[in-house]
Amino acid sequence: MSENIPIQEIDPYILRAQEAFLGFKKLNIKERAAFMHAVADEIEALGTELIAAAQSETSLPEARLVGEKARTVNQWRAYADALVNSNVLPVQIDTAIPDRTPPKPDIRKTYTGLGVVVVFGASNFPFAFSTAGGDTASAIAAGCSVIFKSHSGHPTTSAIMAGAIERAVEKAGMPRGLFVAIATDGATGGQYLVKHPLVKAVGFTGSLYGGRTLFDLASQRPEPIPVFAEMGSVNPVFLLPGRLAAAAEEVATQYAGSLTLGVGQFCTNPGILVAPKNAELPRFLNTLKTQIGQVAPAQMLHQGIAASYHKNKADLLGQAGVDVLVAVDEDNPETHGNATVATVSAQAFLANPKLGDEVFGPFGLVVTYENQAEAVAIANQLEGQLTATVLGDPAELDQHTALIEALTEKCGRLLLNGFPTGVEVCGAMQHGGPYPASTDSRFTSVGPDAIKRFARPISYQNWPDGTLPDELKNGNPLGIWRTVNGELTRGSKDGRMEGEVG
Amino acid sequence: MSENIPIQEIDPYILRAQEAFLGFKKLNIKERAAFMHAVADEIEALGTELIAAAQSETSLPEARLVGEKARTVNQWRAYADALVNSNVLPVQIDTAIPDRTPPKPDIRKTYTGLGVVVVFGASNFPFAFSTAGGDTASAIAAGCSVIFKSHSGHPTTSAIMAGAIERAVEKAGMPRGLFVAIATDGATGGQYLVKHPLVKAVGFTGSLYGGRTLFDLASQRPEPIPVFAEMGSVNPVFLLPGRLAAAAEEVATQYAGSLTLGVGQFCTNPGILVAPKNAELPRFLNTLKTQIGQVAPAQMLHQGIAASYHKNKADLLGQAGVDVLVAVDEDNPETHGNATVATVSAQAFLANPKLGDEVFGPFGLVVTYENQAEAVAIANQLEGQLTATVLGDPAELDQHTALIEALTEKCGRLLLNGFPTGVEVCGAMQHGGPYPASTDSRFTSVGPDAIKRFARPISYQNWPDGTLPDELKNGNPLGIWRTVNGELTRGSKDGRMEGEVG
Repeated sequence: MSENIPIQEIDPYILRAQEAFLGFKKLNIKERAAFMHAVADEIEALGTELIAAAQSETSLPEARLVGEKARTVNQWRAYADALVNSNVLPVQIDTAIPDRTPPKPDIRKTYTGLGVVVVFGASNFPFAFSTAGGDTASAIAAGCSVIFKSHSGHPTTSAIMAGAIERAVEKAGMPRGLFVAIATDGATGGQYLVKHPLVKAVGFTGSLYGGRTLFDLASQRPEPIPVFAEMGSVNPVFLLPGRLAAAAEEVATQYAGSLTLGVGQFCTNPGILVAPKNAELPRFLNTLKTQIGQVAPAQMLHQGIAASYHKNKADLLGQAGVDVLVAVDEDNPETHGNATVATVSAQAFLANPKLGDEVFGPFGLVVTYENQAEAVAIANQLEGQLTATVLGDPAELDQHTALIEALTEKCGRLLLNGFPTGVEVCGAMQHGGPYPASTDSRFTSVGPDAIKRFARPISYQNWPDGTLPDELKNGNPLGIWRTVNGELTRGSKDGRMEGEVG
Repeated sequence: MSENIPIQEIDPYILRAQEAFLGFKKLNIKERAAFMHAVADEIEALGTELIAAAQSETSLPEARLVGEKARTVNQWRAYADALVNSNVLPVQIDTAIPDRTPPKPDIRKTYTGLGVVVVFGASNFPFAFSTAGGDTASAIAAGCSVIFKSHSGHPTTSAIMAGAIERAVEKAGMPRGLFVAIATDGATGGQYLVKHPLVKAVGFTGSLYGGRTLFDLASQRPEPIPVFAEMGSVNPVFLLPGRLAAAAEEVATQYAGSLTLGVGQFCTNPGILVAPKNAELPRFLNTLKTQIGQVAPAQMLHQGIAASYHKNKADLLGQAGVDVLVAVDEDNPETHGNATVATVSAQAFLANPKLGDEVFGPFGLVVTYENQAEAVAIANQLEGQLTATVLGDPAELDQHTALIEALTEKCGRLLLNGFPTGVEVCGAMQHGGPYPASTDSRFTSVGPDAIKRFARPISYQNWPDGTLPDELKNGNPLGIWRTVNGELTRGSKDGRMEGEVG
């Protein structure tokens, strides 16, 4: 259960988490994976109580929550399976060459968890990026214990999810402190956790301000620790002239859908669309206006998010050269997000970096460019992004290589003719990008590679087979992929599978 | 050539490096690997001039330098080969499932260089961890351009090495700014480089003070960038009673050799040996005293290192409970390092964390423990280490699991019955460890995995085959290992090898 804990009472939880980590790290990856499936089972078994609590706490619709619950279960299973089957923490073995000068030792590298990981949940994904979300699943997969700092936006939901993990811990006989969700006094409690010497890494999903604050705290510790903060972005979409001419209405309709999905409360929400200022553009804008106009204002996740949306949107609409194209029902309740799209010229955009800031919610800015050079200049001016998208006909792509190349410097995921909302949980997914999309572009927070954030390599030199961790043993008892003397193999040290006779 | 550049003239070099990066990143990994072999060829072709310059600038013996040159060449070749053959930057492909609800897109993940990397060379490895050393080779392998900040300790050596890389750049028709070595005014110039907005990562080998300074600067930038600083350690060696009884003299002789190798100027120098206080110990100490006594004082790398050695050693010898066992020729010139070993009880060691500090040079501290609990307490008190070593008979290891487990929490490489000096360049090597051994224990600075420090993943969603980077194309034209729909394969998207008919 989430417990509300004053700062001065946090230490015993951290000490228990550290002790649990030291026990948990002795399991091999197959045993860890089995435990992760047990967690998935417990989450799957949660009944309508979970959905009802989340609906009431987040205003998200039931269908969305049912889908997000399935995704959360799937993350635990997928990360568990990847651990065993997909070489996510790649084992390498270089065997000895005793008669070389100097003799080559036997060296074998595996991974070990960093230690106690503190996870801060997101308000916009009460399941998939929260208590039992991707950060928790990947930290456990890496062999760490987790202290989850509950989000004040959905305490009951968090407590129910924490209960599921704790049941799995108990049934599987895992050490008791392996996972704990604690609610503590807001920012101060969170900062206390990040500064604690026994805490070795942090996972965070949320605002740039929040993420950067934690990153700074963690970097300035006597022993700095890694923080993976996913802080969102404007996910720019670049519309090329051929595609605009061929499908102005279709593209406008799709863009309106992606922009307003979930009241615009996704970190991959496409907040900026860059379009050519030509004779076809009015068709696109008119359809966009019509489509956006039909989206009823809806309640946002919580009061604070709605207040920020209205404030940030007003700030942006007040900038020079920004004109409102469509704003749904300005008199809607202040708890609701009303879809709004504005336009601005490339020239005005390039002159004012503030126009590149994220407005979290259903707000879109259409930036119109006169020529390719302006489009490239916009791409170059943008800060780091989770995603960037090109909407273009295949035939026109090679006329826009400068733009496409500029975008590869700015994002973690580059889409063609799609929209960035809807983040597939799979091995090839990169969810993270150059700062400020995330604090470390070398890692992802979605997909099994998220595990890599919380593990470190350790090499064993000249240890006898019986004393090595299972994944390093000659016979490859876990049957995993390993690189042995430079060659990938699923066999034993000598290339044979366990039990095979050569 | 290294050029001596005032700060106000550095910018053009950085701009040229950025432009070179944008050109270089268009090469596929096979083309990058071919260029790296060309660099290796140029270094290999360097004549006696290089060795002579290094000998005169570093006082290192010729045989050592000849070996280090070969190692440097080998690093370029090994990292190039790993790039193509060993899945160091692991490509993943998840193909579309159009009839799923919602449809699954086609997502393919590869890696791209971070951008301009600044490398600070080490004084103790003028070739292998300097101008054309492991950091430069791994940054180039990752697809980055490199600005090398020359070490003031060996400017001519650096210039000769830089010339080799520059010749390879020119012959291969690579962009001119891909590599530049610049000498600038000490710390200020280095800090200017680290703070420059176009610089995206830093590689450093050197002192804790220097590494932490760069790390702090980089973390506090508006856009923080990763710093991999390898800052050395005391590399503790734990001698168990069985091994002491069986081989006191042999172990003492080997320890003396490792401790004084290269005048103790290795980051893996075993500065602390923890031994049982029993009836066998005097045999070990007597041999150690004799062996150390025979090591003639030798010139250290430069005046500053020698001065630090004498100062830090004196500080340590002045601590309570520390007794000199042997100190070679106290009257040797102050440019020389004289081998020295002292002893201290576990109790005194545990009471004074200063005794765990590194004294860079041929100084060893033997800590004597009364019982296993003391040995474990020492392990737990230690800071993060590059290596930790157990000297034990195989039969006694399972009586010391608490100690061995404690050591896995403290180091990047754990050795049995060997000594940590001599770092094998291979896939399974981990050279890096929990802070303060390095700033990010998740990475290594030796072995092909060092490349991972300077590359970030980028996913392509729904791009047509012809527009994808070569490593992501359906037919696998580079013939590399890839994970396709969760399965590792060296074949095409459909599991077939390029050109194979199914």
